[in-house]
Amino acid sequence: MKQLPGLSDIRAAAERISPYVHRTPILTCRGIDGIVDAHLYFKCENFQKVGAFKFRGATNAVFSLSAAEISRGVATHSSGNHAAALALAARNRGAKAYVVMPRTSPQVKKDAVAGYGAEIIYCEPTLQSRESTLAEIVEKTGATFIHPYNDERIIAGAGTAGLELIEEIPDLDIVMTPVGGGGLLSGTSISVKELSPQTLVIAAEPEGADDAYRSLKEGRIIPSVNPKTIADGLLTSLGDKTFAIIRNRVDRIVKVSDNAIIAAMRLIWERMKILVEPSAAVTLGALLEKRFDHAEKRIGIIVSGGNVDLNHLPWL
Amino acid sequence: MKQLPGLSDIRAAAERISPYVHRTPILTCRGIDGIVDAHLYFKCENFQKVGAFKFRGATNAVFSLSAAEISRGVATHSSGNHAAALALAARNRGAKAYVVMPRTSPQVKKDAVAGYGAEIIYCEPTLQSRESTLAEIVEKTGATFIHPYNDERIIAGAGTAGLELIEEIPDLDIVMTPVGGGGLLSGTSISVKELSPQTLVIAAEPEGADDAYRSLKEGRIIPSVNPKTIADGLLTSLGDKTFAIIRNRVDRIVKVSDNAIIAAMRLIWERMKILVEPSAAVTLGALLEKRFDHAEKRIGIIVSGGNVDLNHLPWL
Repeated sequence: MKQLPGLSDIRAAAERISPYVHRTPILTCRGIDGIVDAHLYFKCENFQKVGAFKFRGATNAVFSLSAAEISRGVATHSSGNHAAALALAARNRGAKAYVVMPRTSPQVKKDAVAGYGAEIIYCEPTLQSRESTLAEIVEKTGATFIHPYNDERIIAGAGTAGLELIEEIPDLDIVMTPVGGGGLLSGTSISVKELSPQTLVIAAEPEGADDAYRSLKEGRIIPSVNPKTIADGLLTSLGDKTFAIIRNRVDRIVKVSDNAIIAAMRLIWERMKILVEPSAAVTLGALLEKRFDHAEKRIGIIVSGGNVDLNHLPWL
Repeated sequence: MKQLPGLSDIRAAAERISPYVHRTPILTCRGIDGIVDAHLYFKCENFQKVGAFKFRGATNAVFSLSAAEISRGVATHSSGNHAAALALAARNRGAKAYVVMPRTSPQVKKDAVAGYGAEIIYCEPTLQSRESTLAEIVEKTGATFIHPYNDERIIAGAGTAGLELIEEIPDLDIVMTPVGGGGLLSGTSISVKELSPQTLVIAAEPEGADDAYRSLKEGRIIPSVNPKTIADGLLTSLGDKTFAIIRNRVDRIVKVSDNAIIAAMRLIWERMKILVEPSAAVTLGALLEKRFDHAEKRIGIIVSGGNVDLNHLPWL
């Protein structure tokens, strides 16, 4: 295993990706502050390109590759934000992206990835088919596989959002992210703990997909088995790289009910007039459910993304 | 009639309201620019307090009153954004607000107005009941009636959004607003034409509520009769004050179908990740329907508000 990324890798990533990514705004909302009795600073990666923080890591990975490597393209398996992010990042470098997706993926996701110019290779909706199809593509094309989160370059890129947050808002008591595979959480924890060691890093995870909570508790990776939650970006298990960082740098993982996730999502839409996806509302959900003592604290929240199917809102 | 407001009134309003209102951001979206072949600058009054530009005018009106006047409170009839705006503006001045609303108003609107501390007086859902109920309240309390749009102070306050837009984004070819009663349009047209006379001011109006279009064409106020549109903030008729300004300063009013309004609203949600109400999407709807030649133009758009009933989205 290569060395785990550190602050210098995140700074290098920030420099590398700056021509391509948005420096997203940090918003506040007095109404929500009043409801949860805290001072919240929302770092809005829902306004990032492709609508999610994932574009930071994908861009860092794509622009880290050598000319020889990138000439053969990049490949991944994902039906979510990482696929769209990798597709656009590759296009920005004039490179080819191969995305393995289950045939059964929603048309809107297929369209998004295809719209960014990626070649979609369909597989059956099983882990085995997905992995064998990807292996075949990599074998045939020589493309570099970019894992959605268990990758040093992805982690370093994801950490740039937290870097911007810490640089702009000093003296945060707590920084929160959601946790799925752990790319955002691990990258954020590096930025926060290096630049502001006294700040707590607390992740929020859906109750129905609480593998990271259990992994941190037991000190080993507990895979996510049959996860069930409205937060469909958080179904994945931790990887060895993200877990190694998280176990050293994250103070706490709290569990959140789907009801609280939906209530938090709706509250953000209504009060802040911004679209966030369910996975991005888990953090505020934890505050609504008072999952830890946060009274009057200054809390930075990384809002992970805003890609929502507007035909299927969870409260309808 | 008092003198119509001019640029100096808008500058005075900007100064007066600055401690209370948000200076809202101006957002761009390359995706939508590509779709309509223009460069759009969205002045986001959906992020304004109470979620609409109306808070600017209401604040200007409330803080323009003398101590003796304000001690007796303010009153209005409205079930929409103006009612909430006036309620909060009054509360900010420690004053009382009386809002006459039809009994049949949606609960969510009643709650919003009550939440800002106004006293709600219910009337029957007829114009006559509304006006007689208001007259009674004014008679009884001595409160100052603040009309939702046909009022110099409201117009001057509304014009401060356009002032900020023109100051921040130079060399706009066109500035667009929706038009209902004409408060936003008239105020905006003063700011734009005084500071950037070469910039066109073009308003967009729903086809099913095209009284302003017809009024401008015929040179006299044509009342809105049985208007029917998804853009429920644009049902009202012009007033004598707004019309007097609009006829002198607005270059054009274009009509937009409800289908285009809904498509534009959804496009803004999906691409920009912000909530806008149907009335705020009429402008982009006009561009989607190519209601005038806007190819490659630099267009400032005042996004009027973001108050939406999330249980009833128009595309569902």
